[in-house]
Amino acid sequence: MSTLIGACIIGQSGGPTSVINASAYGVIRTALDSEYITNVYGAAHGIKGVLNDELYDMSKEDDSELALLMHTPSSALGSCRYKLADSEQDDTDYKRILEIFKKYDVRYFFYNGGNDSMDTCNKISKYMQSVGYECRIMGVPKTVDNDLWGTDHCPGFASAAKYVSTSIMELYHDARVYDSPMVCVVEIMGRHAGWLAASASIATHFGQGPDLVYLPEVAFNIPEFLNDVERIYHDTGKVIVAVSEGIHDENGKLIAEYGAENAPVDSFGHKQLGGLAATLVNMIKDRMGSIKIRGIELSLLQRCAAHFASETDVQESFLAGKTAVELATSGITDKMVGFERSYDNNSNYICNIKLMDLSAVANAEKKVPREWINDKGNGMNQAYLDYVLPLIQGSPKMAYEGGVPRFAKLKKIIAK
Amino acid sequence: MSTLIGACIIGQSGGPTSVINASAYGVIRTALDSEYITNVYGAAHGIKGVLNDELYDMSKEDDSELALLMHTPSSALGSCRYKLADSEQDDTDYKRILEIFKKYDVRYFFYNGGNDSMDTCNKISKYMQSVGYECRIMGVPKTVDNDLWGTDHCPGFASAAKYVSTSIMELYHDARVYDSPMVCVVEIMGRHAGWLAASASIATHFGQGPDLVYLPEVAFNIPEFLNDVERIYHDTGKVIVAVSEGIHDENGKLIAEYGAENAPVDSFGHKQLGGLAATLVNMIKDRMGSIKIRGIELSLLQRCAAHFASETDVQESFLAGKTAVELATSGITDKMVGFERSYDNNSNYICNIKLMDLSAVANAEKKVPREWINDKGNGMNQAYLDYVLPLIQGSPKMAYEGGVPRFAKLKKIIAK
Repeated sequence: MSTLIGACIIGQSGGPTSVINASAYGVIRTALDSEYITNVYGAAHGIKGVLNDELYDMSKEDDSELALLMHTPSSALGSCRYKLADSEQDDTDYKRILEIFKKYDVRYFFYNGGNDSMDTCNKISKYMQSVGYECRIMGVPKTVDNDLWGTDHCPGFASAAKYVSTSIMELYHDARVYDSPMVCVVEIMGRHAGWLAASASIATHFGQGPDLVYLPEVAFNIPEFLNDVERIYHDTGKVIVAVSEGIHDENGKLIAEYGAENAPVDSFGHKQLGGLAATLVNMIKDRMGSIKIRGIELSLLQRCAAHFASETDVQESFLAGKTAVELATSGITDKMVGFERSYDNNSNYICNIKLMDLSAVANAEKKVPREWINDKGNGMNQAYLDYVLPLIQGSPKMAYEGGVPRFAKLKKIIAK
Repeated sequence: MSTLIGACIIGQSGGPTSVINASAYGVIRTALDSEYITNVYGAAHGIKGVLNDELYDMSKEDDSELALLMHTPSSALGSCRYKLADSEQDDTDYKRILEIFKKYDVRYFFYNGGNDSMDTCNKISKYMQSVGYECRIMGVPKTVDNDLWGTDHCPGFASAAKYVSTSIMELYHDARVYDSPMVCVVEIMGRHAGWLAASASIATHFGQGPDLVYLPEVAFNIPEFLNDVERIYHDTGKVIVAVSEGIHDENGKLIAEYGAENAPVDSFGHKQLGGLAATLVNMIKDRMGSIKIRGIELSLLQRCAAHFASETDVQESFLAGKTAVELATSGITDKMVGFERSYDNNSNYICNIKLMDLSAVANAEKKVPREWINDKGNGMNQAYLDYVLPLIQGSPKMAYEGGVPRFAKLKKIIAK
């Protein structure tokens, strides 16, 4: 393919992860060093930064500070949840993007996100082709949900999985401190796919994990759940439940909504929405009376705990960003950089690059295979463990200052 | 003093920490190696294990497994919250303890806990003296609350402080990912003393922390709090609040109880108690309308996150246990092993051992000095940072298996 010389934009989109900045750094570092890329711009809050002409000049950042992005959580450039209209219906945004691309001579666009971000990439690419503006567009995946189609796994997932499984392992020990019975319900992110909640089973695999694990892939049966909790409670005195926020009944109704319906309005006038963990806690109390029970939401912590990221995930995230730039400058466009696994002769896991069409990724969702979940739908099989364990290896090689992590502090100088 | 030869018991009591097992290991390892100690018994669930004649023979454990206690969270021997009656009023328990001590020829008793545990130590010691049974009794401190009197700090506190400050630093980054405004209220352990909530200010010190930090040491003024939140919200669009669970109004009424009063009963018949974070979230919503706001309870995670303990804390915790045995076998009794700090010529922090009378520790509580808190009572001064920073240094040197921590698995063989 022809050589294409010009500036590049890197944008981040959707919910952040512990390692999305490692991917951004893969793009930025490689682009700054590329002979084909004249300028490297970071879009402030994803595509909104392009629309608002708010681009950071990444060449103005200190190299050492940029390198800290490898272990800095959240989206350092800022993110957005902005959906582009179809260009046939409304091309206002596209015209504006073209205007900005022309203004800065942008010939490379790298977008770091999930399904919706790949959709954004795909739409921009199609529009640029339709107006004859030469530009190479690559998607760099991220999501703690691990639900992107076509790739073996997504950057961000493994770090969240390592944090979730270890935190639950620690809770397991904490729950056993007294000789009195206790139930603990832990709510984990994942609306449509249960990859992350399933990682709680890693702790179980090592003999220190939840008794019951529920994913949205299997319809949640409330009476069966309560029977299981009660049985384990009477057998062992300790019950730990790990549950994906997106579990639903056989009609597709979210279990969290059972709580919402019952949720009363407090004296401030607010509906007291306790989330899924609180809903299940109340169901268990309703069945079993006033037992010692605790609902724990891992909340935002699970997607930003860079201090306990998987170094494998960190390195792969960097690789995805780096590869996106290398392939784009060599002529590839309209692809997402995904992963494919293989094993060497000693059964060591190897992560290979695999390219996917943006359009295919944009409109699909990958769920946990039913056969990786046990028959009763309340735990994971060995196949899941074989899948996940290679991904969570290695402690993050972070910089520290004063005993706490030293995260990147960017100057964010607006490009002229 | 005279040489005393016999068995020892180590018990753990009260809420666990990330490093209480490092102290237990300090006792167990040193006792197993001592020429004065004939047998080392671990009490199952603290003093209850003594009363129930449920003692583990620690000599039956593998050395390598015992060594893993250094980085295993929670109380490996099990804990309890059992308060002994005054022996003058009811000496049943004391007679039973004496019976067990005689049965196993126990001449050393080490108890690892907080104020109440020191009270237990003190009562047992006085009783043994009154009946002329020679026995040396030492307290080994622990508490994430850091509220033990007389010692510079308590084992367990620094690890929790490191986890809390780093988690909030990560949340700070997460809260800034979108360009829309957001409020985040983080609830931290500490009913009477705010040492741990104050650690959130470490993140602020490094420019990535909460805007407001509230401790139980200062009466919480609700209108002022809401004014501050509103002002910062309008100035910067992002507000992070760190708050100790024990904050109260000027009359001593817990702020969490404001929520409890307003809390309605759901259709299951349960009072919907959301805790302090939920109470403050509702107060803010009431003032500011439907803004994006999130309440996060660090819950049990903050006291069991061994994966991110302070190695300084781990080593000091071990030292406390080890020293307790060394001093007891050399003739000391009725003391708690505390810490006193000094600084060398290069201003490097040094941790020295300091002995305290059990009776003095049992009945006192150490609060954060008012002058370490800012005038408005919503943040910390440099004095607190100077105090806490030396304590949180160092990453835990843990063993891993399959990508997650390898915690100790004890055989717990009951002594005959």
